[in-house]
Amino acid sequence: MAKVGIMGAGSWGTALSLLLHKNGHDVTVWSINADEVEMLSKEREHKSKLPGVRLPEDMKFTTNVEETVVGKDFVVLAVPSPFTRSTARTMAPYVADGQILVNVAKGIEEATLMTLSDQIEEEIPQADVAVLSGPSHAEEVGRQLPTSVVVGAKTKATAEYLQKMFMNEVFRVYTSPDILGIELGGSLKNVIALAAGMADGLGYGDNTKAALITRGIHEIAKLGVKMGGTKESFMGLTGIGDLIVTCASVHSRNRKAGYLIGQGKTMQEAMDEVKMVVEGVYSTKAAVALGKKYEVDMPIIEQVNAILFEGKNAKEAVYDLMMRKGKAEHTAKSWD
Amino acid sequence: MAKVGIMGAGSWGTALSLLLHKNGHDVTVWSINADEVEMLSKEREHKSKLPGVRLPEDMKFTTNVEETVVGKDFVVLAVPSPFTRSTARTMAPYVADGQILVNVAKGIEEATLMTLSDQIEEEIPQADVAVLSGPSHAEEVGRQLPTSVVVGAKTKATAEYLQKMFMNEVFRVYTSPDILGIELGGSLKNVIALAAGMADGLGYGDNTKAALITRGIHEIAKLGVKMGGTKESFMGLTGIGDLIVTCASVHSRNRKAGYLIGQGKTMQEAMDEVKMVVEGVYSTKAAVALGKKYEVDMPIIEQVNAILFEGKNAKEAVYDLMMRKGKAEHTAKSWD
Repeated sequence: MAKVGIMGAGSWGTALSLLLHKNGHDVTVWSINADEVEMLSKEREHKSKLPGVRLPEDMKFTTNVEETVVGKDFVVLAVPSPFTRSTARTMAPYVADGQILVNVAKGIEEATLMTLSDQIEEEIPQADVAVLSGPSHAEEVGRQLPTSVVVGAKTKATAEYLQKMFMNEVFRVYTSPDILGIELGGSLKNVIALAAGMADGLGYGDNTKAALITRGIHEIAKLGVKMGGTKESFMGLTGIGDLIVTCASVHSRNRKAGYLIGQGKTMQEAMDEVKMVVEGVYSTKAAVALGKKYEVDMPIIEQVNAILFEGKNAKEAVYDLMMRKGKAEHTAKSWD
Repeated sequence: MAKVGIMGAGSWGTALSLLLHKNGHDVTVWSINADEVEMLSKEREHKSKLPGVRLPEDMKFTTNVEETVVGKDFVVLAVPSPFTRSTARTMAPYVADGQILVNVAKGIEEATLMTLSDQIEEEIPQADVAVLSGPSHAEEVGRQLPTSVVVGAKTKATAEYLQKMFMNEVFRVYTSPDILGIELGGSLKNVIALAAGMADGLGYGDNTKAALITRGIHEIAKLGVKMGGTKESFMGLTGIGDLIVTCASVHSRNRKAGYLIGQGKTMQEAMDEVKMVVEGVYSTKAAVALGKKYEVDMPIIEQVNAILFEGKNAKEAVYDLMMRKGKAEHTAKSWD
């Protein structure tokens, strides 16, 4: 049995708390919101974020960061990406030397183009930062439907330790040393989810969407490999796997926003209608900036950017993509 | 303008005939069925196979193989895979030295474990055999929805020639030298489509399906690379792209049969209910045989095989997959 702290009581934090509790660990869940903590302690269900999932009586809820971090074998960071850095900063004084922190959010900081684990390390240099990612809707993990994810860590020992902590008969965990590839795949995939949504909004079919997903991850992998990630990660659970789950979901905000834009709305109208932060819009900015920095040609992402920020018509963007000069699918094998 | 023969007037053959006609080529379509030829010549619509798609007046239909092959710049083979060899045999006397044949069907011959292009080459050694594959529901190509595919050929010249012939603003064509990888991906993916259908039938969610797709193509790639294919092809349009489109489709027979098995039917009951050949059942046999021959461990495919042919319970198979020893996602990068 391990002692685990979970920073964040959103749907993903709550689902993972339940999973870790089920695995026999002692779980303390932190939320910044006192009302939420009281509600969770009393109701033992997160009615808005993870409805229908019963939370056990011996799961602790608190607004106290120290209590969630100190003496824990590992701490899970499950706050939305815009709050990762600030949350890490409040945790920093309580984190022991070499204490394991597992970040489960996805995103890239717009101003610095840093990944979340890099931000956490900057704020808490003494931590052993790991990540957990993959195709994992929280509601399905909450309902104990079979799910497979990847844990990325700096040492094999930490990766295999976390694998053992999280894994059970409905939650399979693979290990990986490629933290960067895992994080880039997880955040940049949202640009392609937007594009897939646009294709749906334009009335296109499964052929178009499958091609966007496949060629989209190809672009992301090209960029990610140049940045130091491993190609196989982009072709794995945290890359194309996560993209598939996002594009299939009717709940995905990225897909939904893309759908509205495909139907002719502007980015602002789509964001207003979805009424939530659409991660893919920020990821698109980051992706374009990274593409420029690393000199990688990313035709799909560039068209998404033109649609979002330059008012380009989505139909015209598809036409421009289709009519680019014919080329080889990949260069891994050649005729000569 | 090229002169093109199309062997086969099923949904895919008809959709490609229309595409090539639209690109300005002179198209002759062959069917073994005289009634079908008469119907197509008169009605100018394939009401059962491609309903609602108008076929132009100057598209020729015939039961005459010689007329469809002799003097054509290239010939498309669009017959179902069990008839590829016999059709190639009837074509052989009419095929000129170096004449280009493009196979668009998918499958592996059970008795010989040969790919379709190998069968065609055995029957027509003088031909220049190429393949065209990718995520491409015929109905969507018929309706001119944006679609991307790959042409594989033995020479760059043939690949780029065919790319030019097929490509237009709704049909993007990539080239590849990896004929084997394209064919293996296209046929073996049906095993994973069966597995994805089973997961749906068991009531599992998008997480499970995305993991099956991602880890499934990983297995297929391991086998395919050992057989001489290129890994990138399995991660491309003809591999995971085609698998995504198959798993998303409510029309896929493989997915449907898997669904019924997941709900508790036997393979035979599922086949009877689907009332059609379920390619994935044969592909599973071929995949298992190839796995043995090339000594590749393929856990998902082996479980599908156990469910189909050894009466294993699908739920138990998922449990066994989830509870295998924890491992690394890939070995492309290591900690040391």
